[in-house]
Amino acid sequence: MQEGVSIYLVSDSNVDTAENIASIAAAHFDTFIEKIKKYSYVGDINQIEDIVMEAANDSNSIIIHTMVVKELKEYLQKKAQKFGIKIVDVMGPVIDAIEDSTGISPHTELLRDSKEDYLKKIEVIEFAVKYDDGKDPMGILLADVVVIGVSRTSKTPLCMYLAHKYIKAANLPLVPEIDPPRELFEINPKKIFGLTIDPEVLVKIRKERLKSLGLNDNALYATEERVKKEIQYAEEVMQKLGCTVIDVTNKAVEETANIILNVLRGGEST
Amino acid sequence: MQEGVSIYLVSDSNVDTAENIASIAAAHFDTFIEKIKKYSYVGDINQIEDIVMEAANDSNSIIIHTMVVKELKEYLQKKAQKFGIKIVDVMGPVIDAIEDSTGISPHTELLRDSKEDYLKKIEVIEFAVKYDDGKDPMGILLADVVVIGVSRTSKTPLCMYLAHKYIKAANLPLVPEIDPPRELFEINPKKIFGLTIDPEVLVKIRKERLKSLGLNDNALYATEERVKKEIQYAEEVMQKLGCTVIDVTNKAVEETANIILNVLRGGEST
Repeated sequence: MQEGVSIYLVSDSNVDTAENIASIAAAHFDTFIEKIKKYSYVGDINQIEDIVMEAANDSNSIIIHTMVVKELKEYLQKKAQKFGIKIVDVMGPVIDAIEDSTGISPHTELLRDSKEDYLKKIEVIEFAVKYDDGKDPMGILLADVVVIGVSRTSKTPLCMYLAHKYIKAANLPLVPEIDPPRELFEINPKKIFGLTIDPEVLVKIRKERLKSLGLNDNALYATEERVKKEIQYAEEVMQKLGCTVIDVTNKAVEETANIILNVLRGGEST
Repeated sequence: MQEGVSIYLVSDSNVDTAENIASIAAAHFDTFIEKIKKYSYVGDINQIEDIVMEAANDSNSIIIHTMVVKELKEYLQKKAQKFGIKIVDVMGPVIDAIEDSTGISPHTELLRDSKEDYLKKIEVIEFAVKYDDGKDPMGILLADVVVIGVSRTSKTPLCMYLAHKYIKAANLPLVPEIDPPRELFEINPKKIFGLTIDPEVLVKIRKERLKSLGLNDNALYATEERVKKEIQYAEEVMQKLGCTVIDVTNKAVEETANIILNVLRGGEST
């Protein structure tokens, strides 16, 4: 009989991601999975000891993990190595890439937030990713906050920031040539935040954008005329909706987010 | 303003897995995602060219991909490298680990099966993983096939094999001390397959198992008396259910699976 493989899925949150990846990988092999063991919410070294001992006793084990708590992850890796068990770190390379790119250190303690908070945070970030840029109008109906505005008003980073505050935020670009989806007019306008900006500043931002793309900065996209037309159209939509309008000219994303948070708490927008 | 990061999610199937991982990673950073672009079902080199060119034009891009089609994956990696773009291969390390462990080569053409078949396969494999070992009786209600039997009758590999044949299979261990869940008695017994085995052969298999665990092979688990009791109990349950019973003694998993496939097609079990 063909040699099967025992797969150990390990996480300090839930193992769904590891499980999903194991399934996709398995679909590429005409081979048997002899055994699948799942360990969610692994929170201490004793649990890791038990898991590695069990894996070591199978003839052919692979540990696939999504551990992020630094000490636990290192302990798991060290132990697996000691017993010659193959181990795959799913999250590590992605977290390292973001750290390299931004120069910002990740939180590697899971539990500064509680487990529930952490899972909730992943959920709202997934929401922001899924309903970014108006791709699915369903997001408008499901969101706590819907951000609208013309191109280059920082809608995406704003929604990501709000997600870090546990708020489900969707965003939708406004363009004169495309009618906003009807869903936008069906929700409570208190959930909608329109971003506006000084046309001159936006012209500069868009010219920079075009340059960074290696394009001619005289394109229509960055002309004063076009920008003014877009902003005027956007403001008309916002007025029609009766939503909160925030002028983001020279505002940092955090500032805009704080205005939104304040409105949601029942405060004023200005 | 803090430097944000643009994330490019790329896959030759759908980007859900990459998206999920990006969200978890993002939850660990108090940073902005400046932009998120999703490219599912990337199927040719021209598309890859376009994606990499766009990523190259952002100041701070990361490509997170779940490509498995070899030529496309290699092309993407080469191109990204050329432009100095950070790139993370999510599936590669897991597929490599399984290949190393089993000595079996993966299918790296996605489209031997059609896209839909491939996604369906992942779905049924996920099902087999999720409802392995009777952990959730919901699986019994949702499965195309429910495999029951005492410990060490190859239930898990059988279900994985069936998954490769696009059949949703759940499995449930039978132990005299634990009543089977009521769901087992609520479904059509034609969906249930009971595995039985010669007690002497099972004693040998279990003794080997104990040895491999470094345990004394005189443990109750591998005694003739215990094994006979378990098999007798299991056969009683199978009779009560009126399900198909398959004697797996000296049968390869493929043979057992083919019997099940034959029954499902309306053929006979023997």
